[in-house]
Amino acid sequence: MESSFTVHYRLHCAAGENPMDKARGIALEQTVELPATCVRDDIREQWVGQIQDLEPIEDAHWQCRISYDTRLAGGELTQLLNTLFGNISLKAGIRLERVDWPNALLAHFGGPAHGIDGLRRMTGVEPGLPLTCTALKPVGYSADELAELAYRFALGGVDIIKDDHGIADQASAPFVERLAACQAAVERANRQTGGSSRYFPNVTAPAHCLAERLNAAREAGCTGVLISPWLCGLDSLRWARDHSGLALMAHPALTGGQMGSDHGLSPELLLGELFRIAGADASIYPNTGGRFGFSEATCHAINQALRQPLGNLRPAAPAPGGGMDAQRAPHWIERYGPDTIVLIGGSLYAQGDITTAARKLLQALGRN
Amino acid sequence: MESSFTVHYRLHCAAGENPMDKARGIALEQTVELPATCVRDDIREQWVGQIQDLEPIEDAHWQCRISYDTRLAGGELTQLLNTLFGNISLKAGIRLERVDWPNALLAHFGGPAHGIDGLRRMTGVEPGLPLTCTALKPVGYSADELAELAYRFALGGVDIIKDDHGIADQASAPFVERLAACQAAVERANRQTGGSSRYFPNVTAPAHCLAERLNAAREAGCTGVLISPWLCGLDSLRWARDHSGLALMAHPALTGGQMGSDHGLSPELLLGELFRIAGADASIYPNTGGRFGFSEATCHAINQALRQPLGNLRPAAPAPGGGMDAQRAPHWIERYGPDTIVLIGGSLYAQGDITTAARKLLQALGRN
Repeated sequence: MESSFTVHYRLHCAAGENPMDKARGIALEQTVELPATCVRDDIREQWVGQIQDLEPIEDAHWQCRISYDTRLAGGELTQLLNTLFGNISLKAGIRLERVDWPNALLAHFGGPAHGIDGLRRMTGVEPGLPLTCTALKPVGYSADELAELAYRFALGGVDIIKDDHGIADQASAPFVERLAACQAAVERANRQTGGSSRYFPNVTAPAHCLAERLNAAREAGCTGVLISPWLCGLDSLRWARDHSGLALMAHPALTGGQMGSDHGLSPELLLGELFRIAGADASIYPNTGGRFGFSEATCHAINQALRQPLGNLRPAAPAPGGGMDAQRAPHWIERYGPDTIVLIGGSLYAQGDITTAARKLLQALGRN
Repeated sequence: MESSFTVHYRLHCAAGENPMDKARGIALEQTVELPATCVRDDIREQWVGQIQDLEPIEDAHWQCRISYDTRLAGGELTQLLNTLFGNISLKAGIRLERVDWPNALLAHFGGPAHGIDGLRRMTGVEPGLPLTCTALKPVGYSADELAELAYRFALGGVDIIKDDHGIADQASAPFVERLAACQAAVERANRQTGGSSRYFPNVTAPAHCLAERLNAAREAGCTGVLISPWLCGLDSLRWARDHSGLALMAHPALTGGQMGSDHGLSPELLLGELFRIAGADASIYPNTGGRFGFSEATCHAINQALRQPLGNLRPAAPAPGGGMDAQRAPHWIERYGPDTIVLIGGSLYAQGDITTAARKLLQALGRN
């Protein structure tokens, strides 16, 4: 692998805090975890983070770049995450804006197996047109009730019909039962319409169940799944990519606390680059103007992180959701471009007849 | 299982935000993820969170309790975490202070296999006296160099000699090689001293490697390991408990962003109860006055969450660390009580002769 990756930090210094001390503290904390005086010269030169620059940018804020030897990450996503934000997560005023990734590290982790093009192939959506996605819910419905919704969404032509991420393996609709019922329902609708709607079951689970659920999904005929990497561990994405062949739609559950404005990882780094590097073919995030608080600039930054050139990694599809109004979907595609998955749940349910609601959405998006 | 668990929230309302709307939003967001008008009566009654009370507590802050049907968690830690802080992590001003856990849910997840008593048995430290712990570092040292440190700490009588959590499987000291060298070094010292020092290797790794590393640790003769649940996924703790028989010392890497003062989980809920429920026999946290920012009240709250009665779960050992001065160790044991693991790294290294430094620490703690 190439020798180093560089992290761009935005530091906030509280009263009395010295920015250079803070930067040096990060470089030590994320590597040797020892005071500088206890570190041998050879270790300091090879393993301690190297401060590249440190500049004031605005009131009490500094911009800083620190380079780390790629060997620190040890080729594992768990340790890469630790090097990025392990111990310093417990400090304050440290925001990771972005990372300069060496190509060798990107190639090692590999990124999406399918990417946007793969999702287009499995759903038959031509380049230049957006994909659509919706969620089966609520939790509490039986497998048959969820399957009936899946059938009606598929009749309406929704491309990806995923489980709500909070539907796991509850007794009301156990995974195996739900998988069979929903997949059969979507296939039945496809036979009627000639379409290629796809059911993506939620496989988020304890690690020992993940393999089982992925196998079951593939054997049932699914071509993709939903997974929440922060609930399972980020490496679960990579594992699922390498062992299932299925397309992976990542959900941001539990990531929110990690993305503060003065402390944490930037949303484009976490939900964009890290999820893409780990293997997400699509990344769901809360669109601006919905139930959550991202700005439009943040949404654009996530889109860019998922789609822009990044080593030889395939581009992944942004999937803005989280309370988007179906009527506003064309507006967002105009803003975000057609290589986007429009994820709409509640606003379709609220219309009562979800098949008609889905058809209207597709029409508005130029999809027929 | 019993029917519900109750979450105690502290809500911060921004200007124009209505506290009851905010509470209702949480109850919907964490369950059905639909507007109330789209939810059938039977689903609302059984599955939507039930607001128990909502009281103003201070400027712009409210206290609120919401109960959730235990079936929501589906018996899985991934989904339990999701129900606690999945989507609402992406909102603002929602802090989970604590949870009233039903005994059946506690019994289902099971908690520590060894607990404080088990750690005492494996190290031979009598009740009424604190345990000691240190870390092998820095990253970059060879397996033999780390083993030499392990030997010298063990000669000094440190009870638990763990890998630094940033030492994973880097080429400088690959896991298998390091395990063999450090375990042999600690055994050699024990034969000389007649003591029972224990080497806890860091098994934090991608899920598919976790089983291998746990097996290797057990076969090498280790009785415990270090693991960072937020890097691997919380359920990795439970899995390791059920499949290895080893004692589990949990490290807080990457948890920091999740514990904001106005948004997130309280440290006592995350590093205390959740880690204990998932199977941690000991939980490391940054002690007040070190390199991190916890208050002493927070440290006491974590200690309490780890040790106080909680269903039939064994008490777990708090392991305050993160830059503690060896000279202050007796002070902290006086404050925190003897069922505590004193975790000291840098302050021992800084003394140069780490065997003598360790002996002094033990003496100061009344340990000989």
